[in-house]
Amino acid sequence: MLGKKPTGPSVHQVPEGDDKPRLTCPDCGYVAYENPRVVVGAICSWEDRFLLCKRAIEPRRGFWTPPAGFLEMNETTEEGAIREVWEEARAEVELDGLLALYSIPVIGQVHLVYRARMTAPRFEPGPESLEVGLFSWNDIPWNDLAFPNVRWSLEHWQAMKDKPLCQIQGVPEDWRHRLGKE
Amino acid sequence: MLGKKPTGPSVHQVPEGDDKPRLTCPDCGYVAYENPRVVVGAICSWEDRFLLCKRAIEPRRGFWTPPAGFLEMNETTEEGAIREVWEEARAEVELDGLLALYSIPVIGQVHLVYRARMTAPRFEPGPESLEVGLFSWNDIPWNDLAFPNVRWSLEHWQAMKDKPLCQIQGVPEDWRHRLGKE
Repeated sequence: MLGKKPTGPSVHQVPEGDDKPRLTCPDCGYVAYENPRVVVGAICSWEDRFLLCKRAIEPRRGFWTPPAGFLEMNETTEEGAIREVWEEARAEVELDGLLALYSIPVIGQVHLVYRARMTAPRFEPGPESLEVGLFSWNDIPWNDLAFPNVRWSLEHWQAMKDKPLCQIQGVPEDWRHRLGKE
Repeated sequence: MLGKKPTGPSVHQVPEGDDKPRLTCPDCGYVAYENPRVVVGAICSWEDRFLLCKRAIEPRRGFWTPPAGFLEMNETTEEGAIREVWEEARAEVELDGLLALYSIPVIGQVHLVYRARMTAPRFEPGPESLEVGLFSWNDIPWNDLAFPNVRWSLEHWQAMKDKPLCQIQGVPEDWRHRLGKE
């Protein structure tokens, strides 16, 4: 091993005390545990129109999606969804409830999609968007959507239109300040 | 760097094209992206009793918790919850809906807690449990619970007792076989 450039985690082997193979660095033994990642996003509306972003990055550059992205450390799922709307579309929203939960094992992702109301019809492309727009239902670029779940979440929005979303139980109010950013 | 034992990801620096510091290996440049992890679990009941496990592992060895653990790649959140119940308590359950979603940013976790019915009053400790039991509400070891969210989820179970849980939208039926295990 001496004289070889270190390679990083690149060998699948079962670590001691574990029962599944994990990606391990052959040089230093570091184990890169792979866990599913959480994607947070929101279907944001203003009157009867929906906020969509044309992706400036791969995968699916040039195709349309509501604002969404990977949840970061040190934020709640709600904070993450609001952050993504700002980062990708420079829009401000209030979340109204959880619209959908999609497990997508084949790519190791769990998507949490919120329903959100824009607080003003203001938006512009963030660095990861080529273009941002408000589309009425019939004007949505249905043939140029980035991923299958974009259609699902828009259709789930329609299915729940004017209905209250279930308010799922969360961290009790009196605990929230103790579990947030330090 | 030559002659030094490789150290694995140990330096916080902002990778090219990113805007946040990430844990990077000073030897090979590998970036260990840290994202919040998903914990899946279930409040499982048989008649009016609840399934709890006495933890055989740290943290909080010797304290009680419902079956729960990290979601693995290649499983849905529902499959993960059912797997954890089997691994920790050797019990079989049917899930009945999503009871709670707890974001716990301070430890980078998102907990999804399902409500589940045991299909038989059969259980025994799996390798990560010292003991497993079915407890009536008043017999729950309230002073020896492992984590604050154990109490929250039991109380949320009581709050929703005999009520239908909201059926959150998921992956459409005709897509599920295309997104699961390959």
